[in-house]
Amino acid sequence: MDNQTKIVVIGASAAGMKAAARAKRLMPEADIEVYEQADVFSYGACGLPYYLSNDINDGDALRVTQWGTLKDQEFFLGAKGLNVFARHRVENIDPDNKIVEVLDLEQEKVKKVTYDKLVLATGSQSLIIEQMPTDSKRVSTFKTLADARKWRRELEANNVDAVTIIGGGFIGMELAEAFTAMWGCQVKIIELCEHLLPHSIDDEIARIVENHLQKQGVEIYKNCEVHSITDTGQEVEIETTSGKITCSHVVCALGTRPNITLAQKAGIEIGHTGAIKVNQLLQTNHKDIYAAGDCIEIEHAIGFKVHLPLGSMANRQGRVVGDNLAGRKSRFQKVAGSCCLKVFDMTVSFCGVSKDFAKSAGLDYSEIWISYTDKAHYYPESEKVFAKMIYTKSDGKLLGFQAVGKDDSVVKSVDVFGNLVKFNNSIQRLLNLEFAYAPPYASPLDILYVMGAAAINQELDEINSVNPLSSLEGYTVVDVRTPSEVKDFALEAEGVITIPFDQIHQRVQEIPLHNPVLVVCARGTRSAEVVRLLKNRGNNNCCYLGGGIQMRQAGDLLGPGHV
Amino acid sequence: MDNQTKIVVIGASAAGMKAAARAKRLMPEADIEVYEQADVFSYGACGLPYYLSNDINDGDALRVTQWGTLKDQEFFLGAKGLNVFARHRVENIDPDNKIVEVLDLEQEKVKKVTYDKLVLATGSQSLIIEQMPTDSKRVSTFKTLADARKWRRELEANNVDAVTIIGGGFIGMELAEAFTAMWGCQVKIIELCEHLLPHSIDDEIARIVENHLQKQGVEIYKNCEVHSITDTGQEVEIETTSGKITCSHVVCALGTRPNITLAQKAGIEIGHTGAIKVNQLLQTNHKDIYAAGDCIEIEHAIGFKVHLPLGSMANRQGRVVGDNLAGRKSRFQKVAGSCCLKVFDMTVSFCGVSKDFAKSAGLDYSEIWISYTDKAHYYPESEKVFAKMIYTKSDGKLLGFQAVGKDDSVVKSVDVFGNLVKFNNSIQRLLNLEFAYAPPYASPLDILYVMGAAAINQELDEINSVNPLSSLEGYTVVDVRTPSEVKDFALEAEGVITIPFDQIHQRVQEIPLHNPVLVVCARGTRSAEVVRLLKNRGNNNCCYLGGGIQMRQAGDLLGPGHV
Repeated sequence: MDNQTKIVVIGASAAGMKAAARAKRLMPEADIEVYEQADVFSYGACGLPYYLSNDINDGDALRVTQWGTLKDQEFFLGAKGLNVFARHRVENIDPDNKIVEVLDLEQEKVKKVTYDKLVLATGSQSLIIEQMPTDSKRVSTFKTLADARKWRRELEANNVDAVTIIGGGFIGMELAEAFTAMWGCQVKIIELCEHLLPHSIDDEIARIVENHLQKQGVEIYKNCEVHSITDTGQEVEIETTSGKITCSHVVCALGTRPNITLAQKAGIEIGHTGAIKVNQLLQTNHKDIYAAGDCIEIEHAIGFKVHLPLGSMANRQGRVVGDNLAGRKSRFQKVAGSCCLKVFDMTVSFCGVSKDFAKSAGLDYSEIWISYTDKAHYYPESEKVFAKMIYTKSDGKLLGFQAVGKDDSVVKSVDVFGNLVKFNNSIQRLLNLEFAYAPPYASPLDILYVMGAAAINQELDEINSVNPLSSLEGYTVVDVRTPSEVKDFALEAEGVITIPFDQIHQRVQEIPLHNPVLVVCARGTRSAEVVRLLKNRGNNNCCYLGGGIQMRQAGDLLGPGHV
Repeated sequence: MDNQTKIVVIGASAAGMKAAARAKRLMPEADIEVYEQADVFSYGACGLPYYLSNDINDGDALRVTQWGTLKDQEFFLGAKGLNVFARHRVENIDPDNKIVEVLDLEQEKVKKVTYDKLVLATGSQSLIIEQMPTDSKRVSTFKTLADARKWRRELEANNVDAVTIIGGGFIGMELAEAFTAMWGCQVKIIELCEHLLPHSIDDEIARIVENHLQKQGVEIYKNCEVHSITDTGQEVEIETTSGKITCSHVVCALGTRPNITLAQKAGIEIGHTGAIKVNQLLQTNHKDIYAAGDCIEIEHAIGFKVHLPLGSMANRQGRVVGDNLAGRKSRFQKVAGSCCLKVFDMTVSFCGVSKDFAKSAGLDYSEIWISYTDKAHYYPESEKVFAKMIYTKSDGKLLGFQAVGKDDSVVKSVDVFGNLVKFNNSIQRLLNLEFAYAPPYASPLDILYVMGAAAINQELDEINSVNPLSSLEGYTVVDVRTPSEVKDFALEAEGVITIPFDQIHQRVQEIPLHNPVLVVCARGTRSAEVVRLLKNRGNNNCCYLGGGIQMRQAGDLLGPGHV
């Protein structure tokens, strides 16, 4: 590798700057130029909702290093030896002659820059819908620091009192908290799909999130299509399939799409997801052109390509590209798509694929649900956790995990589970994992162990569970909770047979042997044991309520008991 | 497998009861008897320090299920179909004739019980030192619920004001918090070794824990040997190598030793650790005698046997034994020894082996240190984390991890890392892991990723780090922190060259090319980059302070700045 290589990087956010910095460290003689169309760059975009909420007071806090230095051009030159040209937009790439055309947005001049290696880190932009007016100050997206600053000014001027968020994804959730918790706005969320976070989690988990949002005063419109958005001057009127919604402001939070125009013009291959296609070296179809960050698609461990614009991915991809620019073979491997999300004081985490996805992809899946606690159950600060797991029925391969809880425990679970998905593990592995245990942090048996055991019982011994939101009709329902638990929350079904679990061995013969039986308890552990007892007696038509009454309650929008 | 098998289990704590319950589920016709010498059993012993501290008010809370049912004999019979005989001590095992002799401690009668399969879950007991008086009410151990209840009565009667804890291990730390935080006792800890938690973590991490304890008013005596312990009637006098210590009460918290007398008498093989030897099926040298829980030794992933009396292990072993009793081949695999521990509001976590162990075992190890944050650095509630990692120099195999922080993040790290150790991964794997990221929960680059990158830089490119507590003598010290950081905490060395990191590319020539150079920054990230810059210039005698000034400060018992 010639150390005097000329490298051009397009885009100065995480992926681009990491690639440039790593390449420079490995090739100190290399001439590296970074072109960035914005004036402000290299900030922590994932922190924007917390700047909006005023958890972070100053937007520049997102632009400083851990040691407090602003990451501007001077910094990158002095600390990293990199030339960053802000307000410079690359207009064209000529891969054959290895030239880019750069427009200096200040001077309005175009220059041609040659390169040996090129890195595309062009990022993504907000998706918008055609109904969104382009000229309204009351209707906008939320993607950049400039967007966030504009929103902060409006909020601080007390101009915002009722916000409708179109899109119930990540950003929608985070913004709902920011507008409500700090600024006291009345927030409504409009989601086209059947539940919030539709491409990430399944209905029974989403319902728990929705309940939590509603308890914070957020109104949710699901299965709701937007027909029109009108800024009347005083307010915004949104016509939807659920009627007219009136508010002071609208945020379109529909997700992002990769910025590929430049790549496309240059003949760089675009994948089926609409993002730039790369191999594991993060090379495009032109071997000297790499791409990284929000503009590329990557391989998912379950077996498809995905556009996954996550800061954690972009940062790691930057190092891979930097290594490869310097001639070290570094690979960005398949991903599991591990994510976490704060929704008021609830934490949502997930990885892999949802049941909805598994179903649509024709995968032969099974599911396991559980209600659990994040600490030893007797520890006073222990909090409820609700989780589900998806795996292939045929060979137990782990497909996905979803959980809601408080604080960090569900992030821990997804970090362990995500890497199991990433490296093709199956349910058997869950019983051979090790987890640190002390009562203030965990249960003696980790939630993933318990779910693994339940999955193995389900597949090996047909101790089958059903969705916590299943209808109880058609079953003889056997409730094995204690009398005091039953008193707290009785089942809505008729003819329920109640046998406390601690009497089950004496009274199991009270349960009919041939009817379809659904056994229920609070969390799905006692009831699973009772199903085995029934199987052992010869009832092959019995199952238990996965996640138990607690999960049913937590996800029941109409029920009396919410999380 | 004959379903009418007769199974005898000795010991009704986690391992024994799990084994019995699992076996009964798989073999409903089996006759299973559990013999337990205590009257109270099957409680969460790991929760005892939190009962002592009154975080848990009622000791029986440790004996109830998640749904509030007391786990007594009636419960196990009715819920699990198991016969538990409390206050029954097994006195002898005759493996040839498959008979155990059981003494009914109430009736004082001996009976002979035959078995087809036997499970030893005899647990462990507190280690004591010969200096400990046996007849003093002021001097005792802390192992059982009965111990804890006795201590609670003393504390509630205001009889306890100054407690000396002999032994700076897990229980010692937890008790130090319980006595101090809730009961306002003056606590002293005596540790024979050079630092607290001597067999778990290394000095530079232990020092951070020690600082934290001292800030809470706990006095620590290290390298301190106990010569005598005398109960004068009014108080206890302890003569030590550090002089006389006077207090109202003494707890011996020296760890535990496995209960093996019964096994040993019966000719069951004992391993080098002094615990019962088993294979991965948890079978002893007698194929129909299994053993599980605190009385056995297990295989450590790094390649030796270990006695690891942890609740999380015992629970998992119970299922393995239950499976094998029923003829299903289930294995308890090698362990990494993942642990976590609450020390006031600090969390300590570790797994694998320490540097001290690696050294004594003659392993060819390298180390990496880091100071980091548990959330995005700009997120307002982010807290410092200090960590180190040990791996083999020759092939980068992961050996161990140790960390201190606040709340759960270091538990998450050890749960991921521990399983990497368990399944023989190397430093390269750390760069291919996936972590969920959102600013309230993590950094975009996980601490394990950053440590992995530093380790690879160290091994591949000789970007070498030194222990954060290293002497600065003999080095030209280059401090690359900002002027405001330097002002906050200046280095104690003379002739320090100060070049802020954001000027390093312009001013690197101010650093002498041939002297041994030690580069320092706050956390060890900037300084590592500067070492590379110096290497690129031709200085092959340079290194950086691992974990940076922050870790040095945190671990410096004499320094002005503590965590």
